[in-house]
Amino acid sequence: VGEVTGASRLVAGSMVDCDPAESGCLLRYAYAPSLLPPPAAGVDSMWRYRDLLPVAGGPVRFPLPVGGSPLIAAPRLGTRLGLGDLWLKDETRGTSASNKDRATALVIESGLRHGADTVTVASTGNAAVATALGAAAAGLRATIFVPASVRPTRLALMLAAGARVLLVEAGYDTAFRLSREAAARFGWLDRNTGVNPLTIEAKKSVAFEVWEQLDRRAPDVVAAPVGDGPTLCGVAKGFRELVACGAIERPPRLLGVQAAGCQPLVRAWEGASPRPGERDPAGTIADGIAVSAPSSGDLVLYEVRHSDGAMVAVPDAALLEAIGALAATTGVLAEPAGAAAVAGLAAAFQRDLVSADALTVALVTGRELQAPASRAAPGRSWTIRGEIAEVEQALLGE
Amino acid sequence: VGEVTGASRLVAGSMVDCDPAESGCLLRYAYAPSLLPPPAAGVDSMWRYRDLLPVAGGPVRFPLPVGGSPLIAAPRLGTRLGLGDLWLKDETRGTSASNKDRATALVIESGLRHGADTVTVASTGNAAVATALGAAAAGLRATIFVPASVRPTRLALMLAAGARVLLVEAGYDTAFRLSREAAARFGWLDRNTGVNPLTIEAKKSVAFEVWEQLDRRAPDVVAAPVGDGPTLCGVAKGFRELVACGAIERPPRLLGVQAAGCQPLVRAWEGASPRPGERDPAGTIADGIAVSAPSSGDLVLYEVRHSDGAMVAVPDAALLEAIGALAATTGVLAEPAGAAAVAGLAAAFQRDLVSADALTVALVTGRELQAPASRAAPGRSWTIRGEIAEVEQALLGE
Repeated sequence: VGEVTGASRLVAGSMVDCDPAESGCLLRYAYAPSLLPPPAAGVDSMWRYRDLLPVAGGPVRFPLPVGGSPLIAAPRLGTRLGLGDLWLKDETRGTSASNKDRATALVIESGLRHGADTVTVASTGNAAVATALGAAAAGLRATIFVPASVRPTRLALMLAAGARVLLVEAGYDTAFRLSREAAARFGWLDRNTGVNPLTIEAKKSVAFEVWEQLDRRAPDVVAAPVGDGPTLCGVAKGFRELVACGAIERPPRLLGVQAAGCQPLVRAWEGASPRPGERDPAGTIADGIAVSAPSSGDLVLYEVRHSDGAMVAVPDAALLEAIGALAATTGVLAEPAGAAAVAGLAAAFQRDLVSADALTVALVTGRELQAPASRAAPGRSWTIRGEIAEVEQALLGE
Repeated sequence: VGEVTGASRLVAGSMVDCDPAESGCLLRYAYAPSLLPPPAAGVDSMWRYRDLLPVAGGPVRFPLPVGGSPLIAAPRLGTRLGLGDLWLKDETRGTSASNKDRATALVIESGLRHGADTVTVASTGNAAVATALGAAAAGLRATIFVPASVRPTRLALMLAAGARVLLVEAGYDTAFRLSREAAARFGWLDRNTGVNPLTIEAKKSVAFEVWEQLDRRAPDVVAAPVGDGPTLCGVAKGFRELVACGAIERPPRLLGVQAAGCQPLVRAWEGASPRPGERDPAGTIADGIAVSAPSSGDLVLYEVRHSDGAMVAVPDAALLEAIGALAATTGVLAEPAGAAAVAGLAAAFQRDLVSADALTVALVTGRELQAPASRAAPGRSWTIRGEIAEVEQALLGE
């Protein structure tokens, strides 16, 4: 994690080990009210919170806008769900139309300051597209590892942005291992979620924005989709840091939402093992959160427990219902994973896990883009079984 | 135009008639420096310019964020095109991922203040989707007229948002006539581009934002795609109003860009008639600007001429090239019409219509969204030949 130096506010030794119960793998700062920005009319960008990000002085180099997503009141959707004070944090408007743009931006910003020329990530889709587009904008090369079953639309988006894409037949877990191994071997910037602490650092900025957009208050409940986990963990860390800075008294309760077809953390939360068909990445339409072995799973459970929150699973039918309700009552379009928080709130309300009068925020984490029409995409892809030697061979042969 | 009352800055009589040479169909204000907002760190929203919009006092009722799109430096794309100072005004991040969101928001804002319950528009796609989503968010009913050949993805987006969609077999011109007739007969809010002056009023806010984002300077050149025309006319009016308010000395030169397969205004600009195959809405992939009889055509030619600008047409191959160059050098995704300004700048530079050292802004007007997965879209569609009686019958039978 050599790239996370440079912010003098970082507390030395905060990177020593990774004990979720102590949040030891997360960056710590010398928290004080002065680290928070002064009140402003709007929340324009993630960089607004750079005193709480591991970014040293000097101009921001990442060239695309990031963060500053709207918080939208959703009274009619709230009525439908039984919630009297519901807000949507709409993360669908960014470069790649998902909240993965935040993590991409911070990792690449750090890389640009350290002379990186290539960034790598393994992903089922959204993080890969975000990385491809962010790298294109920043003038970096992106080498991306995806399961060979990746959706054609998403592959086309990566190739349009000029990425080198390794289609790994052995699936996501192998893609993840290969991406990490390639990063170490070739000196590439490692943007892998749950591994690079900057991904959680970036995603915590959502909490800061919500706090400002609610006139410097914390909500009572925040619902977030959970795949690998950094989105929820980022929210948790952000609000905890607001407490540490003296800005709020207590963090919100966290509702983590998984798809019923792939819910290892919900079952772990319940102290059970997933039943057959409950840990299958192909078992749900919500591919953005279909992760059988979540990289930040322990931390998710820790954060949810310490927030007095809950984990719920929702079937695909509830995700489709939530997508429709979002579009028809708020005009916000969401992909299945992007609508999971809303679906989860409906389930949680039914089970008395959320009260009707709670100030509630649902993260809408992404919407689906179409691949652009393009004559000759500048990117290139290779199908490999899953060996690092194949990666070297592919890239050398280029 | 009863709905454009309420702004006391509006000069009485400005709506008398519609003479493009006099811009008489456009709203006029009592221009003064005080109508412009004070400098701020960011440009967060179109409503920032409400002293130059026909919106009376009181809170804005339209519930979704609109405007405040980023202006992105594009040095590597500029190098590719031969332009030394190129910027992108990225209009792809809004609710419906196109600049149609601005016009939709202002028309609906006005309608909400006048008790409207239904909004109507005829569109080949983007304005229809924007209207459906904006109406859903605002709690209005949307009744939308589209050619029966509308892209299935776009129809699905409208239905997901709960719109009533009339699929008109006789095509766009008939859809347009029917939408207007229905608005008059049923008292609906008429959001039709080029008819409702609010569409140009809203789109002019792009000029204000560019001016602020360039540290209160005007660019030398602004390139915009031209279909019906309001996008370019809005830019023209915005910069003219900045001159009128004493903010800039002269407006930028305007480059209007059409697709070679449907370029009635480029041929008119050249004093010629379109040749066979040059006025065909199906003759280009850029369906967003494929309009055979542009509603604001005369005004477009007037504005381009008075800006000392030019009109160019680009073939589909150049649009595809521009889409690829945008993605690979800036990370910005565009649909074909959304990339037309960039393609047009390449063509204009080759023909010495734009110089290498000009401060140049290209409007990237939209990107393509996928239809959301949804179990039962709340909207409904009817296929009709093209008679108003069919409209009544469809809606009565509902």
